[in-house]
Amino acid sequence: PKPVHGMLKWPYRLHGHLFISPSSARSAEAKAFAYCPYSRFRVGAALLTKDGAIFTGCNVENACNNLGICAERTAIAKVVSAGHREFKAIAIASDLREQFISPCGGCRQFMREFGSSWNVYLSKLDGSHVEMTVRELLPRSFGPDDLGMEKGNSTPSKL
Amino acid sequence: PKPVHGMLKWPYRLHGHLFISPSSARSAEAKAFAYCPYSRFRVGAALLTKDGAIFTGCNVENACNNLGICAERTAIAKVVSAGHREFKAIAIASDLREQFISPCGGCRQFMREFGSSWNVYLSKLDGSHVEMTVRELLPRSFGPDDLGMEKGNSTPSKL
Amino acid sequence: PKPVHGMLKWPYRLHGHLFISPSSARSAEAKAFAYCPYSRFRVGAALLTKDGAIFTGCNVENACNNLGICAERTAIAKVVSAGHREFKAIAIASDLREQFISPCGGCRQFMREFGSSWNVYLSKLDGSHVEMTVRELLPRSFGPDDLGMEKGNSTPSKL
Amino acid sequence: PKPVHGMLKWPYRLHGHLFISPSSARSAEAKAFAYCPYSRFRVGAALLTKDGAIFTGCNVENACNNLGICAERTAIAKVVSAGHREFKAIAIASDLREQFISPCGGCRQFMREFGSSWNVYLSKLDGSHVEMTVRELLPRSFGPDDLGMEKGNSTPSKL
Ligand SMILES: [Zn+2]
Ligand SMILES: [Zn+2]
Ligand SMILES: [Zn+2]
Ligand SMILES: [Zn+2]
Repeated sequence: PKPVHGMLKWPYRLHGHLFISPSSARSAEAKAFAYCPYSRFRVGAALLTKDGAIFTGCNVENACNNLGICAERTAIAKVVSAGHREFKAIAIASDLREQFISPCGGCRQFMREFGSSWNVYLSKLDGSHVEMTVRELLPRSFGPDDLGMEKGNSTPSKL
Repeated sequence: PKPVHGMLKWPYRLHGHLFISPSSARSAEAKAFAYCPYSRFRVGAALLTKDGAIFTGCNVENACNNLGICAERTAIAKVVSAGHREFKAIAIASDLREQFISPCGGCRQFMREFGSSWNVYLSKLDGSHVEMTVRELLPRSFGPDDLGMEKGNSTPSKL
Repeated sequence: PKPVHGMLKWPYRLHGHLFISPSSARSAEAKAFAYCPYSRFRVGAALLTKDGAIFTGCNVENACNNLGICAERTAIAKVVSAGHREFKAIAIASDLREQFISPCGGCRQFMREFGSSWNVYLSKLDGSHVEMTVRELLPRSFGPDDLGMEKGNSTPSKL
Repeated sequence: PKPVHGMLKWPYRLHGHLFISPSSARSAEAKAFAYCPYSRFRVGAALLTKDGAIFTGCNVENACNNLGICAERTAIAKVVSAGHREFKAIAIASDLREQFISPCGGCRQFMREFGSSWNVYLSKLDGSHVEMTVRELLPRSFGPDDLGMEKGNSTPSKL
């Protein structure tokens, strides 16, 4: 993967659509709503659908850490529950100055459910970013398209 | 717990606010957006905030089953990412005719993060329902309010 | 639910089997292995199968908090992967002095998969405990036995 | 990534240690214990620690699909709860004839917690396999080593 580095001027046009930014009002809004009393690590995500709709999400933590939901999954669940299933890009923002915030493996799999060739923007606090595809972030993945394949013996022996 | 049984006439007023229904246009909408190619089990949820906003959610499954998100968690993450953290009630709808659809333990914990005394409406397809509180669904729970307590020895010995 | 309070003398016999303890060598071992660099909150669990086998588990956290696994789920997954599916009791231990450590909703659902009438021991650091059943911890739950029921319309409209 | 293709003769020596196999007695055992009444998709995993111990795991599903645990995570949680934290390799087995079974994104993140440079063996039912590293499966990942970095503003504005 050869990520494209650069500075995003927000708001700007991505794939012909006005997009949101880690440092812009809309994404600051996403991050500002983060519910993260346990990690104190705010994450915001903004998702662009094929038909140009934009949805934002934030992390929602839980007293049982393991039951929290990441910003990316929040955004995707939100979009899907609004009737969209085709995505162009997702941008991720955090308060990290020195590092491009990257999605966890769980979120990569959640993204991949809706295709492998759409874009993920990993950003720093200053708005600089790296552009990758879902495929680059999750090589050799499986998804809904892998369901029809032949199984040797799919009947559990112990049920 | 002594659940209140009854028929909800949709749309109706809950706590003085217009609410949505398993069988109504708005909740049918929620359930209709369910992404559940693996279980084929549609679930919709509708959440009422203290200030009267209503948000709907659906289940969003994944080719790795374990990474899917329930309708209830979708609705809550959505609401939180829109800036709300005080809830009055959540209603859950499915296609089950004979049984009141009940939230999984994970969703109960996710609800409890935002208080124990708000209401959960478990419904059948015909719109009949049971009303319970989060506390009744998750007795002896822990939440963010339990964080300040004294720990005997919180330093892991093996890190 | 009327929990039975008392002091467990460890090691002791539970249901006719030698059991382990929050303060005993075996459960200290379970908790000692906790991987919790993020929360610094150690949890240990010990599970007794119907045929008298005992398995211990600890929490295993992740840099993506949401992907960690609780001690109770670790113990259950361990037991199942060793071929057991019938359980008598699970005991949970933490470093909390003032409060009985209680399972999260996710773990309650994970327990309930293997029945509702087995026991859960919530303990304090001093070894005192509360005994509850899975049913008491997760009322109105659903499990594998609820799968055969009639569905009104299980075909998603949007797939 | 240039995966190494080949046929594993089981049992065989991996990194100087006797290892297990998708088709061997030990891994058949792992897969045989799979609790998967919902997907009917059995997965087994076997993990080799640095000091030569081998642990097996299987998937453990739940009536709430989203709360199940994959075979890989079962194996890792098991190993950690036994006091090991340094791993050499994990092998994954399923009943797929035509495709190398690949870990989900969540499991990749769970593996990565314990390092990026250890090996993952994706196998087919016939015992043929692809060898990859955790890093190849989860590029641009984050882990426990990324915790110490400077944050711009880690205080949530809405707590
Ligand atoms: Zn994530
Ligand atoms: Zn749920
Ligand atoms: Zn738990
Ligand atoms: Zn997995």
